[in-house]
Amino acid sequence: MIRIAMDCLGGDRSPDANLEGGVLGLQAHPDVQMIFLGDEAQIKGKLEELKAPVERVEIIHAPDVVTGEDRPMDAVRMKKDSSMIRGIKLLREDESVAALISTGATGTLVSAATLRIGRIENVRRPAFCPILPTMNGGIVGVCDSGANVDCSPEQLQQFALMGSAYLECTYGIGSPRAALLNVGVESEKGDDLHRAAYALLSKTEGLNFVGNMESRDFLSGNYDLVVSDGFSGNVLIKSTEGACLEMLKRLKKDLSSKLINKIGALFMYRTLMEEKKFMNYQNYGGSVLLGCEKIIVKGHGSSKGTAVSKCVDQAYTMITSGLQEKIAESLKKNICQQEETKNV
Amino acid sequence: MIRIAMDCLGGDRSPDANLEGGVLGLQAHPDVQMIFLGDEAQIKGKLEELKAPVERVEIIHAPDVVTGEDRPMDAVRMKKDSSMIRGIKLLREDESVAALISTGATGTLVSAATLRIGRIENVRRPAFCPILPTMNGGIVGVCDSGANVDCSPEQLQQFALMGSAYLECTYGIGSPRAALLNVGVESEKGDDLHRAAYALLSKTEGLNFVGNMESRDFLSGNYDLVVSDGFSGNVLIKSTEGACLEMLKRLKKDLSSKLINKIGALFMYRTLMEEKKFMNYQNYGGSVLLGCEKIIVKGHGSSKGTAVSKCVDQAYTMITSGLQEKIAESLKKNICQQEETKNV
Repeated sequence: MIRIAMDCLGGDRSPDANLEGGVLGLQAHPDVQMIFLGDEAQIKGKLEELKAPVERVEIIHAPDVVTGEDRPMDAVRMKKDSSMIRGIKLLREDESVAALISTGATGTLVSAATLRIGRIENVRRPAFCPILPTMNGGIVGVCDSGANVDCSPEQLQQFALMGSAYLECTYGIGSPRAALLNVGVESEKGDDLHRAAYALLSKTEGLNFVGNMESRDFLSGNYDLVVSDGFSGNVLIKSTEGACLEMLKRLKKDLSSKLINKIGALFMYRTLMEEKKFMNYQNYGGSVLLGCEKIIVKGHGSSKGTAVSKCVDQAYTMITSGLQEKIAESLKKNICQQEETKNV
Repeated sequence: MIRIAMDCLGGDRSPDANLEGGVLGLQAHPDVQMIFLGDEAQIKGKLEELKAPVERVEIIHAPDVVTGEDRPMDAVRMKKDSSMIRGIKLLREDESVAALISTGATGTLVSAATLRIGRIENVRRPAFCPILPTMNGGIVGVCDSGANVDCSPEQLQQFALMGSAYLECTYGIGSPRAALLNVGVESEKGDDLHRAAYALLSKTEGLNFVGNMESRDFLSGNYDLVVSDGFSGNVLIKSTEGACLEMLKRLKKDLSSKLINKIGALFMYRTLMEEKKFMNYQNYGGSVLLGCEKIIVKGHGSSKGTAVSKCVDQAYTMITSGLQEKIAESLKKNICQQEETKNV
């Protein structure tokens, strides 16, 4: 049995969305057992309603909630009865639990994971790697997208290796094309950090480094993985998301503003719905935190049940595909290489 | 007479677009004289064709071209007969010339301006401030958008003051709402640079600092100016531009893919055209380089004549609105304040 913990509190639609997603996950994966953390009575009621397979369900009563207003360090120390911190404790103490899924506060989740969960050998810092749709129907990952705002070139190298392993194991992309987010494509572009990272990535073993990428090409489909410090990676993701949503909003407003547009929209209804679906992050699962000894998947705060179920799918694939071992291996290879270079 | 220099080479549609834009500028502003730099014969021919008012036109023969492939420092030193470097020399040596407009290579333009043109008193480094449309019909500026990839908190403070002065003088926005680009809205968010900048901006005299902004709110219309280091500012602008263009491309493809969509598109033709126009940077003029003793406007490389004419309008308003004095004044006020604080 693959045991996955579900933090049922802290999201905009918690606990219902988390429970619905968890039960969908149980239906999709007969070898999965779910451990739901939250208010026991609430969980029990909803699971009955959803007709969850009780033999593969556990409940841990942890009714306190971590919110976005909590300072992460305070929450980690003080909110021990919260579903999130209790979930992290479970990951740490119970070897049989392989993953935790949460739609709660990102900052606290990262802090708790970094402080309480061990790292894969040689990993300096865990990093987030969300997946976005590209305009030609593919996907692109970004690592790191915000867990580390101050980075070294060596960390960027690790983000590249972890992200590549993730795309290979979880999405079946062989030898992912990894690019460094920069202000221009030429190798000497950017600040000191990015110039040093470019040099390091160029000689990284087992990495398909294709050079710098300008952010305007992010969705082009020419790249599988964007390597970035957490600050600019965060700016990249959120501005892309923001621009797409604002444009859809404008179009929607335009379409309902005049009768002639409304008639046109009727003809195009299916296409417009497809666009909306295409831009909906809910279809692409959560952002995974790479580099910890256990799998951690952070779903969007406003995730519905189907979005949470995608997080279960992601966690399941990450566990069964040997991702953790692959990360350990590719990091070790490059650490050895660096040490050899030093010794020469 | 207000004398404005026009670099006629180096853009995708040069020299025609630059000459057309220049002549449109002359028609709009009877007190403007234009100095065109480039290939003299080419310029003469086109100006005749456009029926330019010859009495307000000068031509400087500088037929060499700075390209994107040139290393900026090399181009500044070696390409003395290029229209761009000759234009910078003109700005430096001829007191009567108030501004230079170029659609050529950005890197070389910044390097040449920084090395050869004096700065307004107390300015540490010039910074770019492009203007984008917001979704509610307003505009938003970003300073810096790429001239400085490594920044100090004091530089960010200057970007805020220069950008605010620019929005006030050129666009008539009183007390512009200035926000710091960051990974979250809380004051303690971000790396060391952004935390220090937040503290400094909070106590900057004459600045309407409204706190941190997440990049997803960039186009919301809630901000007039985004203050950023050149690296993340560049990521912000280009990812927004990229996402909007890719979405329009997708929609266009959708619309022409099926007959039913084509029919729908016919009904919505005017609205779709308006959206396209709305997203077209060509309608918002160039990106201005703030902080130099002379006005420098960088038009998009693919600018058409009308876009270049918007750059002339911008330069004209910047010259006549007293922007340079306003920048000097607001920087001086804060330098004095900082020195007073030190002396206490």
